[in-house]
Parts: sequence; C-alpha cells; structure tokens
Amino acid sequence: MERKEVSKSVLKRLPAYLAYLKSIPEGAAPNISATALANALGMGEVQVRKDLAMVSDGGRPKIGYNRMALIDDIEQFLGYDNTTDAVLIGAGKLGQALLGYKGFEEYGLNILAAFDVEPPADQADGGKPILPLEKLESFCRTHKVLMGIITVPAANAQEVCDKLIACGIKAVWNFANTHLEVPANILVQYENMATSLAVLSMHLQAQMKDKK
Amino acid sequence: MERKEVSKSVLKRLPAYLAYLKSIPEGAAPNISATALANALGMGEVQVRKDLAMVSDGGRPKIGYNRMALIDDIEQFLGYDNTTDAVLIGAGKLGQALLGYKGFEEYGLNILAAFDVEPPADQADGGKPILPLEKLESFCRTHKVLMGIITVPAANAQEVCDKLIACGIKAVWNFANTHLEVPANILVQYENMATSLAVLSMHLQAQMKDKK
Repeated sequence: MERKEVSKSVLKRLPAYLAYLKSIPEGAAPNISATALANALGMGEVQVRKDLAMVSDGGRPKIGYNRMALIDDIEQFLGYDNTTDAVLIGAGKLGQALLGYKGFEEYGLNILAAFDVEPPADQADGGKPILPLEKLESFCRTHKVLMGIITVPAANAQEVCDKLIACGIKAVWNFANTHLEVPANILVQYENMATSLAVLSMHLQAQMKDKK
Repeated sequence: MERKEVSKSVLKRLPAYLAYLKSIPEGAAPNISATALANALGMGEVQVRKDLAMVSDGGRPKIGYNRMALIDDIEQFLGYDNTTDAVLIGAGKLGQALLGYKGFEEYGLNILAAFDVEPPADQADGGKPILPLEKLESFCRTHKVLMGIITVPAANAQEVCDKLIACGIKAVWNFANTHLEVPANILVQYENMATSLAVLSMHLQAQMKDKK
C-alpha cells in the first residue's frame, strides 16, 4: 500500500504491536481485532485502529485482522523484512556485545563486521570479523553499507561519524554519549544507556534519603 | 556537597563530560577548564560551567578543575561509586547479552543474577546464574535488591513488573517494548532498541525512494 508520512510516536507503537502479535501461541484463533489488541496492551482503541489501518489493508469489520498477515504487514512497513547491512565502529565491551547479539536479525539488522583502531588479536572462530579501521572505506563501498553503529568513546565519535559519512553511510546509530553534527540528509539515532542508568541510580538515591 | 534538584537534561550531559574526561590520556595536564571541556564537546560554555559547579566544589578561577577530582565528583553525583545491585528477568538473547556485558560495572550497576520461567540447562561456568522465576522473591529479599531489569516479551512485561515491585524493587529498567503501569514511588526507565531500529530503517527506505 501507499506509504504515508509516519510520526515517531507511531513508530514507537508498531514494534509493541508486533511483539504482542508474535507472542500469541501458534494454535490461537487466526484473527485479532484492533479492540482485542488495544485491550491486551492497555492502549486506546481508536489509536490502535488508526495505526493498523495505516500499515495494513487487511482489517475486516467484525472479524479483525488475520494475525499472520498483520505481522507481515507491520514487518514490511517497519522495514524488518528487507535486511539492512551495517558496520560497527569501536570493538570495546559494548561494541563486542552488540556484534555478538543475535536478536537484531529479527529487526532486519545485519552487522557485517566491526572496525577498530586496534582489532583484538584473539578473535572467536566463526564470529563476525573485527577489522582495522583503515579497511572501513573499501569495505563500505564493496558491500554498499548504508548504516553505521558508533560504539567508540565520546571523544572520538564525531571523527568516526565524519569518516562513516565519507564512506557513504546514510544512517548512524550512536551509542557514544555525545551529540553529533551531520549533514541534513543523514539521520542520527541516539542510544544512551549511561543516561538511563544515571536516572535510575538518582531515583534510588532519593528513595534511600527519604527513608532516613 | 548538598544535592540539589537535578533535571533530566543535566543527567544527560554529565555522562558525556565523564566519558570525555576519562578519555584524556593519564599524562596530560592535570587541570581542565569548563571552557576547554565545552569546546571539546561542542557545547555551550555557560551551560558546562553551571553543570560543573553543581556537581563539584573544586573549580578555581583561571585554573579550572583538577581532572581526577572532577571525575570523582561526577561519578559520586551520578551514583556510579556506590554499586547498585540488580536482577534481570527474561534470559532470552537480549537478557543474556546484558547479563554478560561487563561494561555496566563502570556505571555502578551489578547484575547479580537473571531469572527465567525456563532457565537454560547449559549455563556457562563462572558466568552469572540464571535461576527459575520462583526463586525471585527470596533472592531479592536476601540480597536487598532495589533494581530490576525487564527483558521478557512485551506481553509478559507488566506481570513481571508487578512481581518485581512485590519483591521490593524500586526502579525498573524496561527493555520490553511496552508501557508499564506502576505506583508513584517506582521509576520506570524505558530502553527501546526496536524503535531506534525502525526509525533508522524508515530513514534509509525514504532515502532509497528519493533516489529512484
């Protein structure tokens, strides 16, 4: 179906629908209504109905959506079905954890290789390769890579980001704790676990203090 | 120093300062000014000056901050120095990746154990234990655990969250792609990689379309 402009809040809800739909056992009823989905997730029925209508033509009055077809439609809409190849820069602890994490494939992300100024000498057999940073450009050009994942220290992130853009990268997933300057056609998505932990830790400290 | 009310935007900047300060080589000059820090991170000088004054008494006119002392002050402010024990629920791919990720210790997070309805039979020697969910309550009470990390499917997250709160948990780090209902004294911090990936993937699809 025709792709419409989609807001970030819709993009936040779609993976939640998908996760719920996939969690329903295979043997369950083949159809699900927007109402049932809304109730299961504690969300507004009107909103769910609207979201689903945007991503799928398959809804039928009184019957709802075929569950499997709806899963396909959402995945297609989110781009999970056409795999995106990515490179990862910075093979420290976080970088290696992401490189080894198999769950990304479900979301259509395929990390081809990691790059580091000092690739570790002892690399696991059969694991994804960690290559020297000098090889980044030829690798990206050869494999036509469009997404880069940054897991270097904050102080090096801008330099790495500039390098990625020079290699043809159009979307950057930034795990480094810093703001990045990029041209208008490049998207940076920030992921910041250190901030999350600071917020949680603050809350616990405040709670401890109240108790005293 | 007296702890003041702190905004989420300050909490976002402090880990960035910390990461930069830690990236400076040991042999470099022992002091750093707010101006130098602001320039290095491309941030406003006034803001950096204000943030640093909030977390540290150590700034001296024309000299700046002693770098090591400033690192300590920020870490103390963020609660990184007093370790927070946590339990993790849901030992799937993401859960196991987080359980094995050693980088959290730098941020004062110590995941003691994971819990799952079906703990895997073959657990790595020396790794952190994955225990049956029935043992969660006694474990939390014994170890006085205050933080819970949720990595179960979205459909099970609320149930797990309720259980954690019943076990005395005060702060929840939620990686499940769903909203959680909690009492007012409980903090939920949401982490959503699926959404990030959807946003990135959307951007790439739009770019491909523009090219055609």
